[in-house]
Amino acid sequence: MVQAKSWVLAKHFDGFPKDSNFELKVEKLPEPKDGEVLLEAVFLSVDPYMRSFSSVAMKEGDVMIGAQVAKVIQSKNPAFPVGSHVVGSCGWRTHTVCDGKDLIPIMPDWPQDVSLSLALGTIGMPGLTALYGIEEVLGLQAGETLLVNAAAGAVGAVVGQIAKIKGCKVVGSAGSDAKVAYLKELGFDEAFNYKTIGSLEETLKKASPEGYDCYFENVGGPFFSVALQQMRHFGRIAVCGSISMYNDTTPQTGPYPHPTMIFKQLKMEGFLQSRWEHKHPESLKRLIGWLKEGKLQCREHITKGFENMPAGFMGMLKGENIGKAIIAV
Amino acid sequence: MVQAKSWVLAKHFDGFPKDSNFELKVEKLPEPKDGEVLLEAVFLSVDPYMRSFSSVAMKEGDVMIGAQVAKVIQSKNPAFPVGSHVVGSCGWRTHTVCDGKDLIPIMPDWPQDVSLSLALGTIGMPGLTALYGIEEVLGLQAGETLLVNAAAGAVGAVVGQIAKIKGCKVVGSAGSDAKVAYLKELGFDEAFNYKTIGSLEETLKKASPEGYDCYFENVGGPFFSVALQQMRHFGRIAVCGSISMYNDTTPQTGPYPHPTMIFKQLKMEGFLQSRWEHKHPESLKRLIGWLKEGKLQCREHITKGFENMPAGFMGMLKGENIGKAIIAV
Repeated sequence: MVQAKSWVLAKHFDGFPKDSNFELKVEKLPEPKDGEVLLEAVFLSVDPYMRSFSSVAMKEGDVMIGAQVAKVIQSKNPAFPVGSHVVGSCGWRTHTVCDGKDLIPIMPDWPQDVSLSLALGTIGMPGLTALYGIEEVLGLQAGETLLVNAAAGAVGAVVGQIAKIKGCKVVGSAGSDAKVAYLKELGFDEAFNYKTIGSLEETLKKASPEGYDCYFENVGGPFFSVALQQMRHFGRIAVCGSISMYNDTTPQTGPYPHPTMIFKQLKMEGFLQSRWEHKHPESLKRLIGWLKEGKLQCREHITKGFENMPAGFMGMLKGENIGKAIIAV
Repeated sequence: MVQAKSWVLAKHFDGFPKDSNFELKVEKLPEPKDGEVLLEAVFLSVDPYMRSFSSVAMKEGDVMIGAQVAKVIQSKNPAFPVGSHVVGSCGWRTHTVCDGKDLIPIMPDWPQDVSLSLALGTIGMPGLTALYGIEEVLGLQAGETLLVNAAAGAVGAVVGQIAKIKGCKVVGSAGSDAKVAYLKELGFDEAFNYKTIGSLEETLKKASPEGYDCYFENVGGPFFSVALQQMRHFGRIAVCGSISMYNDTTPQTGPYPHPTMIFKQLKMEGFLQSRWEHKHPESLKRLIGWLKEGKLQCREHITKGFENMPAGFMGMLKGENIGKAIIAV
């Protein structure tokens, strides 16, 4: 019998998350039955969607949603031998008993020298989000110019690097000078700290006087309204996130995009990576291929200790992380 | 030598157009030279785009932009014999001398019993806009549900009828009970007067409890923000116009569409019919085919007299017209 800890949504978020929204629960788990496995979390993911989907995906008292890399420590399911690792949407739990139906084994050819935590980042959901946003939504072509914001985040950093692989000019926005330095390291053509520039409009114009063909949107709010005006005719916008708006108690408003969208014939599409689930295995192989070739660099922001998971989550929402925010148990 | 009248943009619009924005000019036109023709306007078009594009397409003192059906009254260009009719983007002018380069002859098989004014409406730019919005932008499929606003306007009425031809359920919004009655005549499944309903949200829900697959947007502003919430997952929005916003002196604001666009994976695209100019001849044939088969009904709101053109234009922007607003000289 194993003692399991979990973080529960004690109270729905109202504005920016607080400690009091979370409650740590301890319970004893039953032994796995036939067909079941017992998992122990190794790395857990904290992602913006946990805030934005909280009101639709959870009710008060539910365990916080989320993915983890876990080790199989007991198994009555031959598909998941003891000692193997899986990615599972188990929520914020140290231990989980489940039937294995929704578990994804770590790829058998996972390189020895690559941390399994990347299965929650560049070689996982955020990496897939970047890839599908670029290929399926934007249809980014060599020679085009792409704008990405929250560019030093888990998704944004992959977006910029894939766009470079595809032969594009990449302009990135981030919220600190350290992040801007990181973007330059990654090969971004232009990068700026949106908190310290004078005018976003002037900065975007200077970074790409001819405008932007594609815009990978992670931020929303006033950034969007300004960036929209800098799109080229027939520009495309992939709406992946709007992190500047997730903690609003009343929805932010801005000018309707219609006149610009009509005049410039712009396309704008919201998406979730799950739409292309059938392509995941193939896509993960491509991501890991780029990683091995040194074309994709990965940086993680690791918070140690399961008990610090709410703090890691809130820090990520504040933008304290460079790269993927991860909790190491 | 012919005396020509024209309406000039005397002063850029500031808010809703006023008489003082327009000035009637009279000038004597030279005889057409070799290769040129002299046109006499028969019908002139007034359209919302003349307001929305006024600041980018005209400077003060320019003749108002716009299309007309004109008769060739003198010709030194064998392609345009005297007595034939053409559609030309001549602006608000009674007479024009031009080289014929941008003139489109009325189709040779134009039915005798069909007014040539329809070449400015259902069998012209507004009809093409409706068709391309449905086929190229929305990709509307049989069995889907479509929402269209300004549905009794020149574009909206064609949109609804084409959607019915394609086997869809059509819900239309318009601004008077007479317009709603007209939409019912046209075969719309549901139609409502947005000025007299209590709640737009409830009205849209009741008209299609399962939501909307497609939304042909002509209005913008608060209508958009409410309608967006009623889209189905993977819904598509064709942004054709935003007539509720054209006369704003400061841009209207509303909630950013991001969260809904992401969660429901919505697509939204602005467009102009000119993008598919290469398809115009074929498309006009299809529109006229539907007209002959009785599948497309046309209604026009005709203002008589060239001197009343500004009044006809302003009336159209106020929504006084049912169907296409036309000036008959």
